[in-house]
Amino acid sequence: MRNTARWAATLGLTAATVCGPLAHSALAAPETPAASPASLYAPSALVLTMGHGESAASAGAARAVTLSCAPRPSGTHPAPALACAELRAVGGDPDALAGPGDALCTRQYDPVVVTVDGVWQGKRVAFERTFANECVKNAAESSLFTF
Amino acid sequence: MRNTARWAATLGLTAATVCGPLAHSALAAPETPAASPASLYAPSALVLTMGHGESAASAGAARAVTLSCAPRPSGTHPAPALACAELRAVGGDPDALAGPGDALCTRQYDPVVVTVDGVWQGKRVAFERTFANECVKNAAESSLFTF
Repeated sequence: MRNTARWAATLGLTAATVCGPLAHSALAAPETPAASPASLYAPSALVLTMGHGESAASAGAARAVTLSCAPRPSGTHPAPALACAELRAVGGDPDALAGPGDALCTRQYDPVVVTVDGVWQGKRVAFERTFANECVKNAAESSLFTF
Repeated sequence: MRNTARWAATLGLTAATVCGPLAHSALAAPETPAASPASLYAPSALVLTMGHGESAASAGAARAVTLSCAPRPSGTHPAPALACAELRAVGGDPDALAGPGDALCTRQYDPVVVTVDGVWQGKRVAFERTFANECVKNAAESSLFTF
């Protein structure tokens, strides 16, 4: 009888030792999904489009990507972290990032129109800019428009 | 010597059997990054916002999420796969998904305004809808607006 009790105690202790950490991790709060803490910070979520033509109204969207900067950079934009950092540096104003860069482009007129819509830190963003050709767009000083 | 040769052959065969599949998987083309094949299909990228007020122009955005449906459902929307499937079923028209659902809501007037902007299969989307209160918004027959 005493032996049985000792065995039971040993088994209990073993179970606690082995299962303790498992139980802990199982009971730990699951990682918060990306979307649910949205109310904890001002949202920054954008959609960027690029189309061939002079204005968004007349041009379809040949390409479109999403860019979310909170809680962390994400989206189908090819460089979300860089694009978010650049936007943060100018207070979320795409206009401040559309200036000409250093690259040399031909002067061929084959206009592309870029739009940025959505929200930056809770404030609505609606931006449209036409570049003379795609080279000029990609030569803008920001990587925001390189998608 | 004959034994050594047999051993070598066996070892070689074993190596080929064990390592063959590994080499194959290592040499297989890496998974295409989400952004680069954008030109292979019509893009579907949206940003959804929700604000307290009667119109998007007057209401800030309390919440905003991104939703991309190509090449695969993604974004900060809490249920991208479901939202994309619902949009696909109605040809990307958010209006068709904003109808009232079954849930019972109070008739309290505390308007919330929802916007959907971006691109659905290359076509631009600009949608705005005001619901009488947040319960009515969440009761819409689609999960698109539940974020």
